[in-house]
Amino acid sequence: MSFNTFGRVFRFTTWGESHGPALGAVVDGCPPGLALAETDIQPWLDRRRPGQSRFTTQRREPDQVRILSGVFEGRTTGTPISLMIENVDQRSKDYREVAEAYRPGHADYAYDAKYGVRDHRGGGRSSARETAARVAAGAVARLVIPHVRVRAWVEAIGGDAIDPAMFDDAEIDCNPFFCPDADTAVRWEALVDGARKAGSSLGAVVMCEAIGVPAGWGAPLYAKLDAELAAAAMSINAVKGVEIGDGFAAGAATGEANADAMRPGSEGPRFLANHAGGIAGGIATGQPIRLRVAFKPTSSILTPVETITRAGEATTIATKGRHDPCVGIRGAPVVEAMMALVLADQALLHRAQCG
Amino acid sequence: MSFNTFGRVFRFTTWGESHGPALGAVVDGCPPGLALAETDIQPWLDRRRPGQSRFTTQRREPDQVRILSGVFEGRTTGTPISLMIENVDQRSKDYREVAEAYRPGHADYAYDAKYGVRDHRGGGRSSARETAARVAAGAVARLVIPHVRVRAWVEAIGGDAIDPAMFDDAEIDCNPFFCPDADTAVRWEALVDGARKAGSSLGAVVMCEAIGVPAGWGAPLYAKLDAELAAAAMSINAVKGVEIGDGFAAGAATGEANADAMRPGSEGPRFLANHAGGIAGGIATGQPIRLRVAFKPTSSILTPVETITRAGEATTIATKGRHDPCVGIRGAPVVEAMMALVLADQALLHRAQCG
Amino acid sequence: MSFNTFGRVFRFTTWGESHGPALGAVVDGCPPGLALAETDIQPWLDRRRPGQSRFTTQRREPDQVRILSGVFEGRTTGTPISLMIENVDQRSKDYREVAEAYRPGHADYAYDAKYGVRDHRGGGRSSARETAARVAAGAVARLVIPHVRVRAWVEAIGGDAIDPAMFDDAEIDCNPFFCPDADTAVRWEALVDGARKAGSSLGAVVMCEAIGVPAGWGAPLYAKLDAELAAAAMSINAVKGVEIGDGFAAGAATGEANADAMRPGSEGPRFLANHAGGIAGGIATGQPIRLRVAFKPTSSILTPVETITRAGEATTIATKGRHDPCVGIRGAPVVEAMMALVLADQALLHRAQCG
Amino acid sequence: MSFNTFGRVFRFTTWGESHGPALGAVVDGCPPGLALAETDIQPWLDRRRPGQSRFTTQRREPDQVRILSGVFEGRTTGTPISLMIENVDQRSKDYREVAEAYRPGHADYAYDAKYGVRDHRGGGRSSARETAARVAAGAVARLVIPHVRVRAWVEAIGGDAIDPAMFDDAEIDCNPFFCPDADTAVRWEALVDGARKAGSSLGAVVMCEAIGVPAGWGAPLYAKLDAELAAAAMSINAVKGVEIGDGFAAGAATGEANADAMRPGSEGPRFLANHAGGIAGGIATGQPIRLRVAFKPTSSILTPVETITRAGEATTIATKGRHDPCVGIRGAPVVEAMMALVLADQALLHRAQCG
Repeated sequence: MSFNTFGRVFRFTTWGESHGPALGAVVDGCPPGLALAETDIQPWLDRRRPGQSRFTTQRREPDQVRILSGVFEGRTTGTPISLMIENVDQRSKDYREVAEAYRPGHADYAYDAKYGVRDHRGGGRSSARETAARVAAGAVARLVIPHVRVRAWVEAIGGDAIDPAMFDDAEIDCNPFFCPDADTAVRWEALVDGARKAGSSLGAVVMCEAIGVPAGWGAPLYAKLDAELAAAAMSINAVKGVEIGDGFAAGAATGEANADAMRPGSEGPRFLANHAGGIAGGIATGQPIRLRVAFKPTSSILTPVETITRAGEATTIATKGRHDPCVGIRGAPVVEAMMALVLADQALLHRAQCG
Repeated sequence: MSFNTFGRVFRFTTWGESHGPALGAVVDGCPPGLALAETDIQPWLDRRRPGQSRFTTQRREPDQVRILSGVFEGRTTGTPISLMIENVDQRSKDYREVAEAYRPGHADYAYDAKYGVRDHRGGGRSSARETAARVAAGAVARLVIPHVRVRAWVEAIGGDAIDPAMFDDAEIDCNPFFCPDADTAVRWEALVDGARKAGSSLGAVVMCEAIGVPAGWGAPLYAKLDAELAAAAMSINAVKGVEIGDGFAAGAATGEANADAMRPGSEGPRFLANHAGGIAGGIATGQPIRLRVAFKPTSSILTPVETITRAGEATTIATKGRHDPCVGIRGAPVVEAMMALVLADQALLHRAQCG
Repeated sequence: MSFNTFGRVFRFTTWGESHGPALGAVVDGCPPGLALAETDIQPWLDRRRPGQSRFTTQRREPDQVRILSGVFEGRTTGTPISLMIENVDQRSKDYREVAEAYRPGHADYAYDAKYGVRDHRGGGRSSARETAARVAAGAVARLVIPHVRVRAWVEAIGGDAIDPAMFDDAEIDCNPFFCPDADTAVRWEALVDGARKAGSSLGAVVMCEAIGVPAGWGAPLYAKLDAELAAAAMSINAVKGVEIGDGFAAGAATGEANADAMRPGSEGPRFLANHAGGIAGGIATGQPIRLRVAFKPTSSILTPVETITRAGEATTIATKGRHDPCVGIRGAPVVEAMMALVLADQALLHRAQCG
Repeated sequence: MSFNTFGRVFRFTTWGESHGPALGAVVDGCPPGLALAETDIQPWLDRRRPGQSRFTTQRREPDQVRILSGVFEGRTTGTPISLMIENVDQRSKDYREVAEAYRPGHADYAYDAKYGVRDHRGGGRSSARETAARVAAGAVARLVIPHVRVRAWVEAIGGDAIDPAMFDDAEIDCNPFFCPDADTAVRWEALVDGARKAGSSLGAVVMCEAIGVPAGWGAPLYAKLDAELAAAAMSINAVKGVEIGDGFAAGAATGEANADAMRPGSEGPRFLANHAGGIAGGIATGQPIRLRVAFKPTSSILTPVETITRAGEATTIATKGRHDPCVGIRGAPVVEAMMALVLADQALLHRAQCG
């Protein structure tokens, strides 16, 4: 079943394909009275926008957002906020050669198996272009939780990780990789350039942190804060892994090593560690929420790969088109948006039940 | 917000606490006409049941399931199936000492911060005892998808992993660890015994595979098959990480290394690899679905840890009670159950939209 | 699709059949800290309980409720509240004669057409016995909105209506008909007795009023307060019509006659009329919410009616069993319960969005 | 809480205000492969379009629909279908005089009480203009259930009803009232003209019938087919009452009079009556589904009515603007659309559970 809505009381629905006339999001359940203009959304879209460096796809999309409803005299009215972004740089002809063959690793075959439809134009609905709508919706979500700071960065590309000791928050927006470690950013230039020139692609790991989430947000059991974040992250194109706090490292630890001891603090407990990533029993502890996300390498590569045609015959395919050599880079603003969207929803849900 | 229902058209709702009189699940949306008796459910509960070896908690619960509704003359009627399991071996007094202090790593503090309630009796609703209800519901789900084989095993305990070359499916149910590698099972005896005797605990990694899922199940975008599995897995107690297919390894790979090349096959494509874990674009490809889940070590350990009381004063706590030294072991049947529940739901959803 | 859950953030799920071992409700999303014991629920069940006068079914059910979860030390914990009522007076043999033929007006044929199952024991899941679970859940809902007074009564039986001028709130619980007009109650004794003795049955109209609902609860557009109430009422067995405020009379009125003029009041406007039934645009205006519900006559009658067997052959049927001669009478506490459940949900939803 | 999505697996979300730049609907869950073009939708919008006779508002809106997503090469792809209609004839200045006072009977006060926002431009989100989006979505729903014929007509205006003996299906689209009785249509011309010239307005009753719904669609208990229809109808602007089959008349009937006797038929039973309106136990019986809906008179009237200002001061208001003298007339295509939307959803849900 197609299911294009996310959230429980603060919800959004996205629509649109890579090569259709436009794409958009309808944000429903937003509290009334929040100051909202297109200028509150555009900067976040600009961070995700393609074509800003040679390390992302060269498709040129201004990604100008329009607010079509839900705002009156500069404030949210509490009714649905319709956000629309026009597609202006479609080049469907780029995709003609892939119309009849399935790109391995791509959703081509799975969509066709499900729907019996082969929208070859840049992946149709399965394109990461849909994530622009998430980023727009996420900008609205941020306004619902103004005291929470949500911040994502790229932690590793192709297995080459940052040095945690060199982490510098101010550096994140100073390079084309959302990399918080200036030295690593320099290495990545060469790394990603190499992949791009070779017609290859690279996986990446994105880290996202939310600071200021009060203890108590979240819920047992099937809307646990970590379960919602896992679903949110795994719904993003190319994501194959999700960790909260220590994640898989906790799977190799002892109880002593994994304990987040507590001491009395000025406001609630002071934790001596954050192995839990700010969530226990599905509920926020007041510590920073820490979410790590693995992006697979872009499936569209120039290297020819064995595949089959719709008719079931053997062939090989080399995907030309215009693609991100590392889709995880632009994934950072998308993960941020999804974190903000989950937290806005949980904030309202917590208020619903606990006042 | 408390949210104790999972699924979209095949849904279940669980209720009950560790030390209440009973716990249960209501399964709704089940197709009619399926043969169902308590004997179809009990074997799965027995696999998860505590007290079967010295490597799990010594709490003695028969975990006998009763079907209270939804079945008539041995067949499902299409109406809600109420499943109930009585608690018989509560020893609330074991928990008196923890009534006033928060156990680090546990949900104690978070629940109290949210609800202002401190149900200290074995963790109340946050106890892994709730997973018995999932296993019971999962047994019903299996009947909805009889051609799918869902199988989980423990892949690593405390960082000590199985040797993939020694994988033997028949071994999984022959040792108390759901370990598919007999040699590793021997090592784990010593490992887990050591942790148990030291009053410590160990994390674990569980792998779950579903074979026979047809290409096409799943959905874009916010009910992607992998997003649903991630939410399902992360909703289980103690889970901190989820991977589909290569997971975080894909985050370090190149596009060539990650491609699942295809050749013509007798029924749809024959894939030369399964880095994707059987899911592309949120939709099943027909390959085995592969889900890996990290369980943190049990938070309840005998080693004293710094913590605070409800009144905010410093103290230390050593949790006696009866606990699993490695909660991930009994996690294997729970992950299986959640996989079956997600797939049954997706099977019906696919039929809804695509016939 | 079977769908046995109602509500958005304050939700309940019911299960159980007329002649199974028990029935119940799981209430989820309840705010924590509310004082709740079985004695808070039992009086409401007692009002709906069968066998209390000769004007209801003679089935003897004590309808004793048990709270199985969600309450600790006398207060709600915020986790799911499982309520169970055992069936003790099943006489399935009463129904043997209807096992093979469909009772006209009953759900027998429709259930069989849908599910291919014929649970003839008292209607199975389609029995009004399920409404006991609603009443139990409704008792919890009342605790969420203590300042709202929800009150239902029977306004007409078999077309014989009360005299509005004789309305006396105190009378409602003083006769077996929930009738607010003592003179009418006397007439109804003869009327219902006559129907009962003739093996016939009678339709009824129930009116329900909620006083104290603050302006602002409710929502555009697909969760309008009136839409939720309409769904809630129409989900009750035997209900065929729903009106808010003037209802169908508004369909015959002019704009002037239908206007609820306003004057300044001490707290918000003072309305000069309440044609709207307390709801405008799906949102409460602060006036009493007024919901009118039509119950058809019980389908189970002694008069033989033409019907067919499961095999498709012509026959006639006269339903013996034990039945309410006027199911609408006991509908009054059920409508009350559904009103309370909708309002509790809307109260929390309003708090979620608007604080 | 704002909640602007309707449906369970075939869902739609609407957005937009009366005087914003546009309005629209996102239809999600539509089966793939259906032929769909704007020309499939436009005729239904044209039926509802304002300004076609002197009996509806004189606002001139072409209501041209655009499909922005979800269709590829003339067929639905199974992904969300975004439909947009631009507003071209806004005259916000018409509403300046109502900016500060609440129109009695309108949603003005309730919205302000809820959201603290006063979007006076033609009612903002509470305007019946939103129903254009429903009609567009309903046109898509019809394609999902091509064998079902959904047909609505106006049965009474201001208490003046059609003569059932004169019912002529072919007449419905031959007069500006969707009136199936030619003589009555002539009377209504004078009646509605009179109301219009007097600056008054009239209520109406709309009847909707769906023929061809197979026995079995629908569900116990909280998604009963009649409960879904009741919610769908009551969510429409100005609706105050809903009946299924005999509705309130069943509340005055005896069991014998209300029985729909059955005889053997060529395909399932042949019913001798349809008091139930085609639904028993929430499930379709195979007979025509019959839904009756009461629309209150338009609240916007020229006759001055007492009211208050936002500041709480007494005033009177006479609403000029451009309004339908009888909003129920254009309600007919909207009720049809909601019926189609509910049935499409139920068709897919039934297939999900019962194959």
